[in-house]
Amino acid sequence: MQSTNLIVLSQIEIETFLVEGRLERLRELIAPCRVVDAESFTDASWLELLKEANPKILVAGWKTKPLPANACAEIAPALKYICYLPGSIRKLVPRELIEQGVTVTNWSSSISRTVAECALLLSLACMRRVAYWSHQMHDQGGWKDVKTVTQSLFDRRVGIHGFGAVAKALLPLLRPFTDKISTYTEGVPESVFKEYGIRQETSLERLFAENDVVIELEALTPEREKIVDEKLLRSIPAGGAFVNVARGALVDEDALFRVAQEGRLQVGLDVYTVEPLPADHPFRGCRNIVLLPHLGGPSTDRRRDAADHSLENLRRFQSGEPVLQPITLEIYDRST
Amino acid sequence: MQSTNLIVLSQIEIETFLVEGRLERLRELIAPCRVVDAESFTDASWLELLKEANPKILVAGWKTKPLPANACAEIAPALKYICYLPGSIRKLVPRELIEQGVTVTNWSSSISRTVAECALLLSLACMRRVAYWSHQMHDQGGWKDVKTVTQSLFDRRVGIHGFGAVAKALLPLLRPFTDKISTYTEGVPESVFKEYGIRQETSLERLFAENDVVIELEALTPEREKIVDEKLLRSIPAGGAFVNVARGALVDEDALFRVAQEGRLQVGLDVYTVEPLPADHPFRGCRNIVLLPHLGGPSTDRRRDAADHSLENLRRFQSGEPVLQPITLEIYDRST
Repeated sequence: MQSTNLIVLSQIEIETFLVEGRLERLRELIAPCRVVDAESFTDASWLELLKEANPKILVAGWKTKPLPANACAEIAPALKYICYLPGSIRKLVPRELIEQGVTVTNWSSSISRTVAECALLLSLACMRRVAYWSHQMHDQGGWKDVKTVTQSLFDRRVGIHGFGAVAKALLPLLRPFTDKISTYTEGVPESVFKEYGIRQETSLERLFAENDVVIELEALTPEREKIVDEKLLRSIPAGGAFVNVARGALVDEDALFRVAQEGRLQVGLDVYTVEPLPADHPFRGCRNIVLLPHLGGPSTDRRRDAADHSLENLRRFQSGEPVLQPITLEIYDRST
Repeated sequence: MQSTNLIVLSQIEIETFLVEGRLERLRELIAPCRVVDAESFTDASWLELLKEANPKILVAGWKTKPLPANACAEIAPALKYICYLPGSIRKLVPRELIEQGVTVTNWSSSISRTVAECALLLSLACMRRVAYWSHQMHDQGGWKDVKTVTQSLFDRRVGIHGFGAVAKALLPLLRPFTDKISTYTEGVPESVFKEYGIRQETSLERLFAENDVVIELEALTPEREKIVDEKLLRSIPAGGAFVNVARGALVDEDALFRVAQEGRLQVGLDVYTVEPLPADHPFRGCRNIVLLPHLGGPSTDRRRDAADHSLENLRRFQSGEPVLQPITLEIYDRST
């Protein structure tokens, strides 16, 4: 049975992920293949393409239409590997395909360092109150006065909630500022903390109460919804900061707003329970919250790192080696 | 002749510089001494105090009234050491006193790392367009869209204009992001660049044209006024950033505004030719300029580092050792 691999991406994805010869390397790696514009399909013509090409490998992006659960059984029986350039695979790949043994990968930890960078930026921005000063300087004709308080990250106690790939990438960015870094998470063996030279706090309560800057990097699970509650937020020492670059739903946002509004806590947010953040959300206008529109990672210029990760995985797949960081059912169920 | 050392500081200076036992250590080091409120004097009562106490050591701060040029000769002949906790000593100390052999120190490089921190913050904020997003998110109900471009500092070429204490403190903060760091300055021996593992560009023109992020850290001299002109600014590659945490007068600000307004350059500023920045200055409202009100260094919480530097110098002075980083006539003339 004839099989042609497919690269189904938008023009922007090709231009930003597959820069500097990467498209050519990709085409070579999975030849024979076709490159098609992800935005040119109806639901029907998308299924038709799959049937006609019957790809063994599908390279996909944000704009690729979802795969049907019966893709392998009936529509494209040759399909063995879905190489998704971005992160959230749930919209594209039905769980059944993983159950059926199709290999699935995404950008995985190749973009972690850019999210870590965003966490550092928000931490520094909290300490210097950048949202407040941006408003004052741009819109209020403001300037500092004798009572202006600014803070530094140097020598601060930093607590990281969660210890996955982003937290690991954050450590080398934080270490020039402080060696007082601790973490709290569950299910990570002690040897990992040792390997990374980081101290595990004995409880989530201590992580918040004993650190000046708390950075939220925990994975979202149903049990962790709103795990960061008012009590935890209020326990951060006065003048401290709370930064979230993980998932908005980890935090009780009503409580966060109440605590932030009082002014004793600086807050830096890249993620929200509802995204886009509603236009009338109370966070907007609260000047001790630095707000970014979920652009933690990867920045446009580092999408190439995700492409390099995918290219390595395609090389491995084609030469029969195991791919790096495949999406298991466990990862699939945990992902957002 | 009777001599009592003087600590002449404002209440806020005592509370922020001399935290955690530092006031007590200071009093012990220079006993017998008096602590007086710097803000409680008229010009006349200030001279009277100097005459009456005839200090050998004066510990001073922002609010200490200026010393007269004839302080040593007539008013306080015992005066040998002026230990100024902050930075700019020209308002307090007339040049003649240094000529007469009075030892003068200030916070010198003890605060450099906080200025370096501000330079890193502004660089990261430029790459993620924090001023733009702060405005969009807080005041415009905004959110990212498919055309949103964000950038990272990872793997970027960073050029530093000047290679003094702040530049040296910036290197360890930049290195986790990139090893493509170069500098341009004059009069620094090649061995210093080697020691710090940094490449010297062959010209200022190349420093601007060959780097994605240019950080201004050069010392201001009369010859360097507006040395960063429109041509240099326009030579920074599109999508790049210009950050100034040194002195505003190094830059042709009219040219900077013209270039910034076009949107191809992100700008981060902590310093301005005229400070406070005039309320109607065109920088205000230009959303690809991150604006801070000259709070680079030291942050309030790190004033203790300046105090520690002064305490060490007082210990040295009292035990007959040479002080660290004394203000020479050359430094005095160069300072702002």
